[in-house]
Amino acid sequence: MGLLLLFNGGFMLIAALVSFLYKDGVTLEISLAGLVSSAIGGLLMFVTKDHKKEIKKREGYLVVALGWLLMTFSGTFPYLFTNAIPNFTNAFFETMSGYTTTGASILSDIEVLPKGVLFWRSMTHWLGGMGIIVLAIAILPLLGIGGMQLFAAEAPGPSADKLHPRITDTAKRLWLIYLVYTVAETILLKLAGMNLFDAMNHSLSTLSTGGFSTKNASVAYWNDKPLIQYIIIVFMFLAGTNFVLSYFAFKGKVQKIIKDEEFRFYSVFILLFIGLCTFVIYKDAHVEVSDYHPQIFGELESAFRHSAFQIIAVITTTGFVSADFTNWTPFLTVFFFGLMFVGGSAGSTAGGVKVVRHLIMVKNGFFEFKRTLHPNAIIPVRYNKKSVSKEIVFNILAFFILYMLLFIGGALGLGFLGLDFESAIGGAVSSLGNVGPAFGTLNPLANFGHLPVLAKWWCAFLMLLGRLELFTVLIVITPFFWRNR
Amino acid sequence: MGLLLLFNGGFMLIAALVSFLYKDGVTLEISLAGLVSSAIGGLLMFVTKDHKKEIKKREGYLVVALGWLLMTFSGTFPYLFTNAIPNFTNAFFETMSGYTTTGASILSDIEVLPKGVLFWRSMTHWLGGMGIIVLAIAILPLLGIGGMQLFAAEAPGPSADKLHPRITDTAKRLWLIYLVYTVAETILLKLAGMNLFDAMNHSLSTLSTGGFSTKNASVAYWNDKPLIQYIIIVFMFLAGTNFVLSYFAFKGKVQKIIKDEEFRFYSVFILLFIGLCTFVIYKDAHVEVSDYHPQIFGELESAFRHSAFQIIAVITTTGFVSADFTNWTPFLTVFFFGLMFVGGSAGSTAGGVKVVRHLIMVKNGFFEFKRTLHPNAIIPVRYNKKSVSKEIVFNILAFFILYMLLFIGGALGLGFLGLDFESAIGGAVSSLGNVGPAFGTLNPLANFGHLPVLAKWWCAFLMLLGRLELFTVLIVITPFFWRNR
Repeated sequence: MGLLLLFNGGFMLIAALVSFLYKDGVTLEISLAGLVSSAIGGLLMFVTKDHKKEIKKREGYLVVALGWLLMTFSGTFPYLFTNAIPNFTNAFFETMSGYTTTGASILSDIEVLPKGVLFWRSMTHWLGGMGIIVLAIAILPLLGIGGMQLFAAEAPGPSADKLHPRITDTAKRLWLIYLVYTVAETILLKLAGMNLFDAMNHSLSTLSTGGFSTKNASVAYWNDKPLIQYIIIVFMFLAGTNFVLSYFAFKGKVQKIIKDEEFRFYSVFILLFIGLCTFVIYKDAHVEVSDYHPQIFGELESAFRHSAFQIIAVITTTGFVSADFTNWTPFLTVFFFGLMFVGGSAGSTAGGVKVVRHLIMVKNGFFEFKRTLHPNAIIPVRYNKKSVSKEIVFNILAFFILYMLLFIGGALGLGFLGLDFESAIGGAVSSLGNVGPAFGTLNPLANFGHLPVLAKWWCAFLMLLGRLELFTVLIVITPFFWRNR
Repeated sequence: MGLLLLFNGGFMLIAALVSFLYKDGVTLEISLAGLVSSAIGGLLMFVTKDHKKEIKKREGYLVVALGWLLMTFSGTFPYLFTNAIPNFTNAFFETMSGYTTTGASILSDIEVLPKGVLFWRSMTHWLGGMGIIVLAIAILPLLGIGGMQLFAAEAPGPSADKLHPRITDTAKRLWLIYLVYTVAETILLKLAGMNLFDAMNHSLSTLSTGGFSTKNASVAYWNDKPLIQYIIIVFMFLAGTNFVLSYFAFKGKVQKIIKDEEFRFYSVFILLFIGLCTFVIYKDAHVEVSDYHPQIFGELESAFRHSAFQIIAVITTTGFVSADFTNWTPFLTVFFFGLMFVGGSAGSTAGGVKVVRHLIMVKNGFFEFKRTLHPNAIIPVRYNKKSVSKEIVFNILAFFILYMLLFIGGALGLGFLGLDFESAIGGAVSSLGNVGPAFGTLNPLANFGHLPVLAKWWCAFLMLLGRLELFTVLIVITPFFWRNR
């Protein structure tokens, strides 16, 4: 954890460098934040240097949950020290939304923030995404959480079951891909007409499926530059795809990608949804004709682009906004509510339930009918041509039920704290799924700034729960985790 | 099925008798409806009289699903023949809402209906309730649906596994209790100041957890007669309790009731919820002070009574209305949305997910944490001191996931047909759970009459799905049910 803080401080210094280059006047404050973080980290490492480095499974949960919390606490320093977000609750919410790659913001005017702080804000997304990759590919499968074992078997690197070599090796390869994608998107966005600063920030937010923008209007700011939006669409799609598949792509193993069941479902359903959404928007296009949505290449292209953008933004839980989907038609509002339960692919930086879990659940549900008709037949669920153990299916079902209960509990909590029906339900599903924009008073054009203090903490808690696949956080706060050691 | 129709026609003749006694002028039409139903039933029996009477498991599903549909089709006759509801879609919706004990209505003015038709309307609830008791106690457990085996083991009567003797014996005992409760409530309501006709109708609606009232204002009509409302509260609670427990009560086996885990959870949670709701209403009581809610015994009693009434009405999926819970506070609106996912006890006439399933799911979720920490430990879920087989737990998890998917699919369907967010979500959860009142434009003071035609059919389908525990209907429409016979 000391090492985490040390790194975090180091990244703050990069934000300070950006601040210095753009002369935004807060270079000193950000540097100070970085130094304080690093100092605390160094101190932690010094104090604990005599402890043995091997960690057991039980401690694994604790490290993950506490690590994320500690990062979030120290991540607030740049906001607090520069007075960009002076209120601690707001700073904590914004940072948690950053590290969990949610992208919900309490800021009503983003554009007044110093460039260094804006860069730090996008950086929290990107660091969170790095953490998620290593978590999803290397740590959660070993902890046995929610069917993550399923695709981890396919992960590159030595398949030794010991934690340490695997993390290092796998993480390095996938982080390289993550970095390459980020740089590639930055260059493409710059070429398409963004300035370098916006291009960098949006790339950091895209690859982490975060959603923080440097503009108040989010990506709708570039509604007159379709190319920019198409580039972001493509990279959101990639960020929501299992990074292991990207690794195979770079190795030239195209067969492995095409045969991947989750990828096939993920792609096909996105295409179907875009088709449906384009049709509905086009049919009721008069709703959308406004200055805010200039139709450069006509109505159909505009309907297609905004459909593709918003559907991929919600499914991958990025949460960028090109148009307000709650303002399209009542059907599409309910439709996007449903989409928030989908989630991206496992092994990506996307949050939510994840496509592979839905796949297993639907298959199992289908087989449950067969089992009901033929109680003595043994019908295993198969995934990528291998049969899935009953324990993993069980774990996935339990995960989904817990997810739904937390969604209802989350909405109840927000309702109790004064939110109306639509906002409470929307805020809960969006926070738990790390999407960002929601419904009602939390619609894509609004922000979370007006929420009561406790509601902000509640949403931040839901974000952390959802991001760490529920079990990791919940297991740490159950009594028997601390009992029979 | 012929026999079912014959019975249905017979009960219509009872409604015709009521019509005759109250001289409402439609006696002939209702009698005709009864005769036509009976004639079709008789014909069906005559045509099929040479078939063997033993039915196999596979045919069991078909009989249940088609039986319910056939009853609903013939149940529309009294509405259609008397022109009380001339539109077929509306008549079908109202009848389906009746037999599934949902209680959602398309009527905006109930009180203008002839008394014979009103009685038939309440009768559809009561007949549906009879069907549900035999279904839940005797048929579904044998078909192996959604953990119904759990409490069926406790059902009275010979425990032979053959379908026929068990149904007859168990059903007779429980139907007697059902009848005794109905008569008892009628007498009590009459004594408390209702006229005999209203007392009969409300008793039929209460014991079946239906919710059709003879008044436009539902039970809020008697807001100045608290005793009437308390009587209904008690009988709604009983109707939402496993009828097998009532059987034990009549036998004097109180120990068995107190030790029943589901009953304990059902009672304790209802009490907790009432406490919470009373507190919130009392705190914000100024919202509720109106002529519509006269406070006979002061604010606190009024808050308690309406809390108890609405919470029990929603949990038992009765759906009677003493006050509009969507008009209390935003929190309580979300709270009642959550309550709609609870459902009554298994083995009662209540719909929804049911308490026992939540109990097993929560226990299993809790153990899933333990299993995650100790992957090799075998930790079975226990219910009423017996360990529950993994297959049953699996089946319950699959049931709940299917339920949530159907809820989301149901809401999407209603959204697609033009309903706004709140109404679509409310209409879906209320129809699937057989509750009745919902949210938005389908709030407790409104009705389903303004829905587009297709939305009415969609809701009717969701009611049938929910009422027959999902699997029974869905299994019949899967292709492999019809394949490998």
